[in-house]
Amino acid sequence: MRMYDIIEDKRNGRELSKEEIEFFVKGYTDGTIPDYQASAFCMAVYFKGMTEKETVILTESMANSGDTVDLSMFGSLSADKHSTGGVGDKTSLIVAPIAASLGAKVAKMSGRGLGHTGGTVDKLESIPGYKTTLSEDEFLSQVEKTGIAIIGQSGNLTPADKKLYALRDVTATVDSIPLIVSSIMSKKIAAGSKNIVLDVKCGSGAFMKTLKDAEILANEMVKIGNGCGRNTAALITDMDRPLGSAVGNSLEVIEAVKVLKGEVENDLKEVCLSLAAKLISLVLSLSYEESLKRVTDALESGKAYCKMKEWISAQGGDAAFIDNTELFEKAEYSYEILSDSDGYISAMDTEKIGLSSVILGAGRSSKEDKIDFSAGIIIDKKTGDKIKKGEKIATLFTNNETSLQDAEKTYLSALTVSAEEPEEKPLIYKIIG
Amino acid sequence: MRMYDIIEDKRNGRELSKEEIEFFVKGYTDGTIPDYQASAFCMAVYFKGMTEKETVILTESMANSGDTVDLSMFGSLSADKHSTGGVGDKTSLIVAPIAASLGAKVAKMSGRGLGHTGGTVDKLESIPGYKTTLSEDEFLSQVEKTGIAIIGQSGNLTPADKKLYALRDVTATVDSIPLIVSSIMSKKIAAGSKNIVLDVKCGSGAFMKTLKDAEILANEMVKIGNGCGRNTAALITDMDRPLGSAVGNSLEVIEAVKVLKGEVENDLKEVCLSLAAKLISLVLSLSYEESLKRVTDALESGKAYCKMKEWISAQGGDAAFIDNTELFEKAEYSYEILSDSDGYISAMDTEKIGLSSVILGAGRSSKEDKIDFSAGIIIDKKTGDKIKKGEKIATLFTNNETSLQDAEKTYLSALTVSAEEPEEKPLIYKIIG
Repeated sequence: MRMYDIIEDKRNGRELSKEEIEFFVKGYTDGTIPDYQASAFCMAVYFKGMTEKETVILTESMANSGDTVDLSMFGSLSADKHSTGGVGDKTSLIVAPIAASLGAKVAKMSGRGLGHTGGTVDKLESIPGYKTTLSEDEFLSQVEKTGIAIIGQSGNLTPADKKLYALRDVTATVDSIPLIVSSIMSKKIAAGSKNIVLDVKCGSGAFMKTLKDAEILANEMVKIGNGCGRNTAALITDMDRPLGSAVGNSLEVIEAVKVLKGEVENDLKEVCLSLAAKLISLVLSLSYEESLKRVTDALESGKAYCKMKEWISAQGGDAAFIDNTELFEKAEYSYEILSDSDGYISAMDTEKIGLSSVILGAGRSSKEDKIDFSAGIIIDKKTGDKIKKGEKIATLFTNNETSLQDAEKTYLSALTVSAEEPEEKPLIYKIIG
Repeated sequence: MRMYDIIEDKRNGRELSKEEIEFFVKGYTDGTIPDYQASAFCMAVYFKGMTEKETVILTESMANSGDTVDLSMFGSLSADKHSTGGVGDKTSLIVAPIAASLGAKVAKMSGRGLGHTGGTVDKLESIPGYKTTLSEDEFLSQVEKTGIAIIGQSGNLTPADKKLYALRDVTATVDSIPLIVSSIMSKKIAAGSKNIVLDVKCGSGAFMKTLKDAEILANEMVKIGNGCGRNTAALITDMDRPLGSAVGNSLEVIEAVKVLKGEVENDLKEVCLSLAAKLISLVLSLSYEESLKRVTDALESGKAYCKMKEWISAQGGDAAFIDNTELFEKAEYSYEILSDSDGYISAMDTEKIGLSSVILGAGRSSKEDKIDFSAGIIIDKKTGDKIKKGEKIATLFTNNETSLQDAEKTYLSALTVSAEEPEEKPLIYKIIG
């Protein structure tokens, strides 16, 4: 078999065989296939696509290119949730305890934040004592006992994807649906869960800016997940505004705890109920309606809240901070942003709001940056809200006073204010699978 | 400027600027742009093409990436001829002296043979004493004095093309018209001639198998040559059968001499007259008809034959071999191929006939192979000819007796014999420019 022929076949639009795709993944991972052939191949895939069958094989090959997590001890109960990334997206902190309180085994490896989106592992690290690294035994035994463990990505997971993504990133071959799907799903497949719910974000703060693109991606991911033998479903949810009101690490943990305590009714709660219901429907083979009933009950009865405390304690975190979120260290400086006009917020450039929180210290511009856990934004007025001149629309928090001016400017540049009340847009566009 | 953006722009079908294309050629030649970006770029060009303007810039950038030959001392008289390669194609040996005898200055760098096609430099080396390497001064002064010099490619000509072609060859990006055209034409532009005639071969022994593909290539090369400020024209000629009757190095020189001596009337002579007429029409700004008259006269009067002897002598070759071609060393073994059936030769797989001569020792399978100058084939019956069982259709020549069986088998497998006389096909399909 020669890589040349594989490139040529794909260039000519032919479907590749299992042997050919495995030859490519193995050869590229071990270095016998050079970067220049892999990049030409990716560009051919960009133009010619891949069939569902090819994408399943590519995903499985990449999943098997390194370590894999064996969750077979949990039978059909293992559960994972993945978000394509957004601003203020703290749903994992809420969905995981709801699902675990209903019997799911949530064994999750999460990423760190980069650019305008935050990462679950960074948020959890803002809880004193929380360990984001566990040995495999510790990880599995915690999932067994409490139903949840969330750690950072460890070991040599999907080295083929790591190498290929880095190459795609410098050769303008990122924007290819089969390559995006196989990259995301190979990590999920390697992470071992039998049931996977995907939260595909759509809008100004998301990778997919339009509903059409988000639908294509979501449909493909569900097909490929199922094709790899996992029960997979997806929700397409709005990211044309931040989710909830908190952006920033400890601020988001506090908001998640408030949802679990039943102290807030907002968009965040609604999205979490839907995600948890879809996940439970897969894990327990129930209808979505029945699952939604159980999920709502788990939240309202306090079962999910108790599960969160159990999980945080089990993983070394100080549960007193969950009981009393006032214990979280506060940022030294806070600054209220006031409206300079009357009207309605008709649009929010969510990516810019994420960048404003990065400026305050809540995120990373490059991998080496340190995070200020208490930095961030509490948003008072979102898309659709009426605002008056001089009214507080958000509060910025930081330990770096000099960042406030730039962060405020960026925040304000994200808002569009109009005289007319804008049409209300859905929060959950679609449930697939 | 970033190579990433250039790849992305081409991928999205945007026209690249002069600065961008020059940045790519310069950066790829000096190694600051890596192979993996260049191959992704070539694959994007494969799918999105290049405009005429872009291809002219790419061609000029590659021409200027290394040494260039300055022929400005010859004003508008400098002339070059290029063939896309075929079997039995010894036209340069005839066209060059015809054109030079009419005042053209033919300063030509030619290639060596590889695979099933022969190379002009190898053919010339079969003449004892002929020097295929000259210093720049020797080269220019010989062109000045005799009107012709043909040498091997020397110096650091178009290093950008050399590097890029080697990359395209292993990444399935050879078959792209703008990349093929810029590769061929950059070498012609660097070689310096003001007037260029291209012989685009078409058929079973050529790179372009169909007339449609040959026309596309020929039209593009003429446009790009003119766009680079050279008077460029192209003939599309048949390569569905070998040209003339000799295949092999000294055998082809002998056939060329016979044409110049007026001893044969065949397809080879006809193609040479047309190529020479087109070239002279460019050099002297004459009509094709007037040029054809002068060219025919130069051949029939013996002027062109005398010019050949003058050129061969000037370049160190023994002109006695031209006067008396019986002096060429003969191969030790010869073998007559006899027809095993009655009928008409209705098709010849010309590439296979070229391979048969390589088996006999006349060509190279890899760059390191040594050539047997006396090896080759004299073809008696070609497409359209009636054959009888037991009649001689070709003679094989070699110094390696063991090759005869394999060569005969290959030769016979190239022929299709049918009961009906096949329709006659044109020898010259089209003259462009």
